[in-house]
Amino acid sequence: MTRGLFIGRFQPFHNGHLYAIRRILEENDEIIIGIGSAQDSYSIKNPLTAGERIEMIRIIMKSMGALDKSIIVPIPDIFENMVWPARVIELVPKFEKVYSGNELVLMLFEQFGIKTIRIKHVSREEYQGSVIRKKIIKGEDWRNLVPNEVYLYLNKIGFEERIKRLVKHASEVEV
Amino acid sequence: MTRGLFIGRFQPFHNGHLYAIRRILEENDEIIIGIGSAQDSYSIKNPLTAGERIEMIRIIMKSMGALDKSIIVPIPDIFENMVWPARVIELVPKFEKVYSGNELVLMLFEQFGIKTIRIKHVSREEYQGSVIRKKIIKGEDWRNLVPNEVYLYLNKIGFEERIKRLVKHASEVEV
Amino acid sequence: MTRGLFIGRFQPFHNGHLYAIRRILEENDEIIIGIGSAQDSYSIKNPLTAGERIEMIRIIMKSMGALDKSIIVPIPDIFENMVWPARVIELVPKFEKVYSGNELVLMLFEQFGIKTIRIKHVSREEYQGSVIRKKIIKGEDWRNLVPNEVYLYLNKIGFEERIKRLVKHASEVEV
Amino acid sequence: MTRGLFIGRFQPFHNGHLYAIRRILEENDEIIIGIGSAQDSYSIKNPLTAGERIEMIRIIMKSMGALDKSIIVPIPDIFENMVWPARVIELVPKFEKVYSGNELVLMLFEQFGIKTIRIKHVSREEYQGSVIRKKIIKGEDWRNLVPNEVYLYLNKIGFEERIKRLVKHASEVEV
Amino acid sequence: MTRGLFIGRFQPFHNGHLYAIRRILEENDEIIIGIGSAQDSYSIKNPLTAGERIEMIRIIMKSMGALDKSIIVPIPDIFENMVWPARVIELVPKFEKVYSGNELVLMLFEQFGIKTIRIKHVSREEYQGSVIRKKIIKGEDWRNLVPNEVYLYLNKIGFEERIKRLVKHASEVEV
Amino acid sequence: MTRGLFIGRFQPFHNGHLYAIRRILEENDEIIIGIGSAQDSYSIKNPLTAGERIEMIRIIMKSMGALDKSIIVPIPDIFENMVWPARVIELVPKFEKVYSGNELVLMLFEQFGIKTIRIKHVSREEYQGSVIRKKIIKGEDWRNLVPNEVYLYLNKIGFEERIKRLVKHASEVEV
Repeated sequence: MTRGLFIGRFQPFHNGHLYAIRRILEENDEIIIGIGSAQDSYSIKNPLTAGERIEMIRIIMKSMGALDKSIIVPIPDIFENMVWPARVIELVPKFEKVYSGNELVLMLFEQFGIKTIRIKHVSREEYQGSVIRKKIIKGEDWRNLVPNEVYLYLNKIGFEERIKRLVKHASEVEV
Repeated sequence: MTRGLFIGRFQPFHNGHLYAIRRILEENDEIIIGIGSAQDSYSIKNPLTAGERIEMIRIIMKSMGALDKSIIVPIPDIFENMVWPARVIELVPKFEKVYSGNELVLMLFEQFGIKTIRIKHVSREEYQGSVIRKKIIKGEDWRNLVPNEVYLYLNKIGFEERIKRLVKHASEVEV
Repeated sequence: MTRGLFIGRFQPFHNGHLYAIRRILEENDEIIIGIGSAQDSYSIKNPLTAGERIEMIRIIMKSMGALDKSIIVPIPDIFENMVWPARVIELVPKFEKVYSGNELVLMLFEQFGIKTIRIKHVSREEYQGSVIRKKIIKGEDWRNLVPNEVYLYLNKIGFEERIKRLVKHASEVEV
Repeated sequence: MTRGLFIGRFQPFHNGHLYAIRRILEENDEIIIGIGSAQDSYSIKNPLTAGERIEMIRIIMKSMGALDKSIIVPIPDIFENMVWPARVIELVPKFEKVYSGNELVLMLFEQFGIKTIRIKHVSREEYQGSVIRKKIIKGEDWRNLVPNEVYLYLNKIGFEERIKRLVKHASEVEV
Repeated sequence: MTRGLFIGRFQPFHNGHLYAIRRILEENDEIIIGIGSAQDSYSIKNPLTAGERIEMIRIIMKSMGALDKSIIVPIPDIFENMVWPARVIELVPKFEKVYSGNELVLMLFEQFGIKTIRIKHVSREEYQGSVIRKKIIKGEDWRNLVPNEVYLYLNKIGFEERIKRLVKHASEVEV
Repeated sequence: MTRGLFIGRFQPFHNGHLYAIRRILEENDEIIIGIGSAQDSYSIKNPLTAGERIEMIRIIMKSMGALDKSIIVPIPDIFENMVWPARVIELVPKFEKVYSGNELVLMLFEQFGIKTIRIKHVSREEYQGSVIRKKIIKGEDWRNLVPNEVYLYLNKIGFEERIKRLVKHASEVEV
């Protein structure tokens, strides 16, 4: 049995994540989905809590019929780069390869001799958390950038409203 | 849909955990299993890593046919008791009640007005991680204290050997 | 007896703080003044230490004849937003409401079901720590933006000089 | 104007603290009361939160008519002894001397060239937090070991019950 | 015997550091070289690990024939400015003076009554870590800004390549 | 060129350390001496600061004529065992093997595939920091358990007095 590890912040989960996960599931028996910056929430960069991100990812994995094959694990930041892969290894079940489009993630796992596979970003100019969050701030449509189940969940928990309040905060707060 | 939260250290998973989980699954649609002291491992109190504990719990939930209903989340300690329930709320999906036999867990969640349900320990003198770890140290049989699938997994990863080396360490290291 | 909680960074204490505190004292028997980012000092954003901020606030509360009704508590940052209100609850005596003009503070306390009251900023374009610090950097007059007692205290401890040295540092230090 | 600094954990405030504080107030214009291990609570060693300890100390200082002269500051532990006095200096207003009966506190402040005054413990075999907590555990009378106002406050917040639950927890939890 | 303390981040070691170290060695029997932000690495601001920085500094001190007189100590950040000099004092052997061109370092050590000596930066527009890292990013020549031994070492460990990958990362990663 | 890594707490440096270091120097070109629990000091378990331990080890390495071959690096604890070897790798220059008599150190480095060499303790019943500290507490002779240069240095900085005050503290402080 083989497992591929995939780490993202999922703020929110978008179609780019979906493509990556589909590929990893094709090439492996199971996928470990690490939720990065798990300790952060209610910030513009990380509006969702780790708990909400677990919920959102479970919804989409269930819709793909792949919940049984998914191991979803929140990974708090450690702010000490060389040590971060060891924390990941500690927190998740055994895996064979790391899939990532993130240059730093690739570099750090390489240091520990772990097999890395570079993922090409699909439509990176659109499928990106920061792009979606900016669209929400500007009041633009972002529905087609995320799976429909994700869109419905985010609506239910007031994702747009939260981001708007966080932006209001950022613009008001003194530096 | 209702969810019950259950938090343990699972060092290792034993029959007492099994009874609690069965009850929670009877009374709820889904169970959130929080893995406490997730950051600790390779210590006598916490020999297994969080990753190994996730693996072990998945094995037993699968054997119960309840993997789809189980949300397994590692929870690192925060060493600031009043703040700990907020970290749990942050890291796990929404839940309605906390089930626990741990007096401190009950006290702390009560402070935040969360519904708590006291779980009676079954055969506490036997079904307890520390009892199992002591039996291993003394070379006594512990097989009947854990589900068989757990026993096989722990054998595979060298659990007994690890505990014995940790004890050797503790006896040698200068205080 | 009722208490209102008010949290600021007080870098430095200015007339906007004064208006807020007066209102809270009118509507409550006592005020809890939480000093945010208490662990930070000697930075451009937070030049004063928590100890200096306590001193400064005591001076102004004394001048208002309200020292007995004031509970001043430094609150170190926790860098985990969802958990921050729990730390505040831990560090300060019981209170009934949070007064704040800070959108994030309001959002976070709402999550815990605590009563929040939105404070309107008075003359926000002037009464703001960052505005005062910028005026000092540019050598502009800032005396009328803070209570006179505060101005005298800040002069005594060399506030202007400290800010200028911190700016010199920031401009020189390599990024 | 002179200030003396006094640091304790106040679990709970007892007559020994009262004697020390009286002496410091006689020898100084103001007293700074540092609440040590401020981040800890709901443990057998530190059952009360920092907020509750502030409340309790305010009650007794008010009864002494010395609230105006008291600066009460919670001090979280730093777990790096050499650095701890610097954290204290950061968090409290300027002071001239440290009063303490604690050998480590005296040693550490000496390293920074700060004037220390050794306080003799009065009736140390009785006036001690751990003695009081043990009496509560055994169901013995402890009323005469603390100021009456403190006793009434602790009764109101359920101090005895909390300690008994914490002991129950400690005896049950697996090591 | 006298010792001068010098603290830098050494990302990388450049000729400006060399001038400072020569002067300190002329005025003292030994030099303590503190490596700041020791916990950071694989970031654009701090590409090298503490271990690599120790190696690089040893190479240059050896080439100067001054290895015996050099005490090289990594100093992790503490993110609490007032407390930072105490951490330095804790981690390094006794010293008499701090040499620095860094305004904040001078300010903080002054608070603790430690003798500080301001170092003038030599050719600051060139001899600066950030300038060198920017030249690498732009593909410009930087060889003459660092001692030759340092250049050879950095080439051997792939310094340019690392910086380019880190920049690639920074430009791609979502904010 | 080969390097061996040796990690100890050196509270204080004793003849057991000396034997180990001599062997490592025989088998390698250079030795890296990691000072564990570097953040701790003024405790019974770790009375000396990291700075004092660096000084002490330099004295003995100089007396062995091996200062040039010694790389002495303080290593703060991380309280997350699986991650600790990565921190060591981050903080020290490249090495080929870890020498240790500490079972946990061996286990943890094995997890990362690093070559470990088990060192036999020489006269472990005597050559042990805790034994020496206990002798000092009881007023027994300990001079012959440490190199003479170490003994002289510890006398100069008041090691015995410090330990006695720390013991006084521990016996007085309330638990």
